[in-house]
Amino acid sequence: MNERDLAARVGETMFAADRASRDFMGMELVSCEPGRAVLRMTVRESMLNGHDICHGGLIFTLADSTFAFACNSRNNVTVAAGCSIEFLKPVQRGDVLTCEGIEKTLQGRHGIYDMTVTNQAGETVAMFRGKSTQIKGNVVAGLA
Amino acid sequence: MNERDLAARVGETMFAADRASRDFMGMELVSCEPGRAVLRMTVRESMLNGHDICHGGLIFTLADSTFAFACNSRNNVTVAAGCSIEFLKPVQRGDVLTCEGIEKTLQGRHGIYDMTVTNQAGETVAMFRGKSTQIKGNVVAGLA
Amino acid sequence: MNERDLAARVGETMFAADRASRDFMGMELVSCEPGRAVLRMTVRESMLNGHDICHGGLIFTLADSTFAFACNSRNNVTVAAGCSIEFLKPVQRGDVLTCEGIEKTLQGRHGIYDMTVTNQAGETVAMFRGKSTQIKGNVVAGLA
Amino acid sequence: MNERDLAARVGETMFAADRASRDFMGMELVSCEPGRAVLRMTVRESMLNGHDICHGGLIFTLADSTFAFACNSRNNVTVAAGCSIEFLKPVQRGDVLTCEGIEKTLQGRHGIYDMTVTNQAGETVAMFRGKSTQIKGNVVAGLA
Repeated sequence: MNERDLAARVGETMFAADRASRDFMGMELVSCEPGRAVLRMTVRESMLNGHDICHGGLIFTLADSTFAFACNSRNNVTVAAGCSIEFLKPVQRGDVLTCEGIEKTLQGRHGIYDMTVTNQAGETVAMFRGKSTQIKGNVVAGLA
Repeated sequence: MNERDLAARVGETMFAADRASRDFMGMELVSCEPGRAVLRMTVRESMLNGHDICHGGLIFTLADSTFAFACNSRNNVTVAAGCSIEFLKPVQRGDVLTCEGIEKTLQGRHGIYDMTVTNQAGETVAMFRGKSTQIKGNVVAGLA
Repeated sequence: MNERDLAARVGETMFAADRASRDFMGMELVSCEPGRAVLRMTVRESMLNGHDICHGGLIFTLADSTFAFACNSRNNVTVAAGCSIEFLKPVQRGDVLTCEGIEKTLQGRHGIYDMTVTNQAGETVAMFRGKSTQIKGNVVAGLA
Repeated sequence: MNERDLAARVGETMFAADRASRDFMGMELVSCEPGRAVLRMTVRESMLNGHDICHGGLIFTLADSTFAFACNSRNNVTVAAGCSIEFLKPVQRGDVLTCEGIEKTLQGRHGIYDMTVTNQAGETVAMFRGKSTQIKGNVVAGLA
């Protein structure tokens, strides 16, 4: 299996098991490629806080999910070792958020991934950086 | 109104409007005092990720909500200016998470708050630090 | 004065006054352009810690200086509102570190800048992200 | 050797080898106890940036050194796995900065340490949080 097909397969496998991202948050897995993933989520009424804008924690959750898909996309089980987030613009009800996660560096078992969350107007609403560490095992067993 | 009663009133007002924390996440506001807040949340099946543990973003969300209550408790509208989180232990289905947020320093309009998330066994599962900035206005109008 | 010349002028002015970066740390200002800056520093014996590698704080200092030049390059006085750093590789005595800082986004008064520190072999040794806020005033007075 | 004497011995050993903290930065090791360390540094003219205040990177360096002493104080070689800093007040020439580092939690090989930097007036000027991971080996060989 080539690495693009493998990444897609890893993404589907992870997404099928991830009740929080899929069902609770209503995220959609747009793509999972080697060192890259895209997820999408629509902001519902139930996600608003007392200022009538989307709770920042739920934007974090979208970026954190995207990070997990991007850093596991090579089929090596990989966990978060740290992260930081900057919130740049308020997010409104009905906004469609797209998060793209990209591998910036992967040296041995340690990687840095940058997640950028944009709204339907293409404006950046948050930036999340994650540091990852590979542990033992494969996400999908029995493949390269 | 003394500052303890004011903080409790601010907490109730914010919580009533915060659909994300109250309804979507199922958090409970345990207390809101001057410079301190406690929230609680039970981890449901729907909050689990593909590793069968609670999605880290939802633990972040609990801490971020607690931060908002603690830093607004003096009735000055206050927003997050930055945050960091460290995840220390996996959280399981059925775990009851309690997050306590405490003001470490408040100098002029800038504060630092430490949120500690513990499980029902008293183990610390995550630590979140938030930096806050007061802006204009009061959370509850017409009070001191 | 066009914006490239202005950025260069801002860089020279800041560098002349910055005793810590220039004299104490021995940094060199390679370039200051609109939304971008490059600084360089050689790791001396005196910068080593007990593990015989460069003290992480001094790598942070190089990145933090670069951030200041990049975010002030448009001649609006701009301060750091937060930062995070990831250390990726140990740095040895004699290594020549180059830090490039790039503006990722600037929306109103708030910007995000990414600083990447590489060694003479082109390996990334640290990544620093800074969030900036413009305040009142110009770095160099009497110019556009 | 009891754990207090061991921590003091670890501190002396590390400090003797740490040219950056001791000679370049001019820090003083005030104490190293189990899970706690205190370092002190006077801000010299050479540490000022273009705003005539202490370069933030050098304050970070003081806190990062204190973190290293605190997390290695039990004689298990321990490295930083991540950190964050918040700057709260400008620091002036001649200020005497004291940084106290305290272990907040140590679960297995992973710890969280909080460093607080105060000036001679007792005002908090910066807060640094570090996450540590123990690796193999002892700081001082041949002791418990």
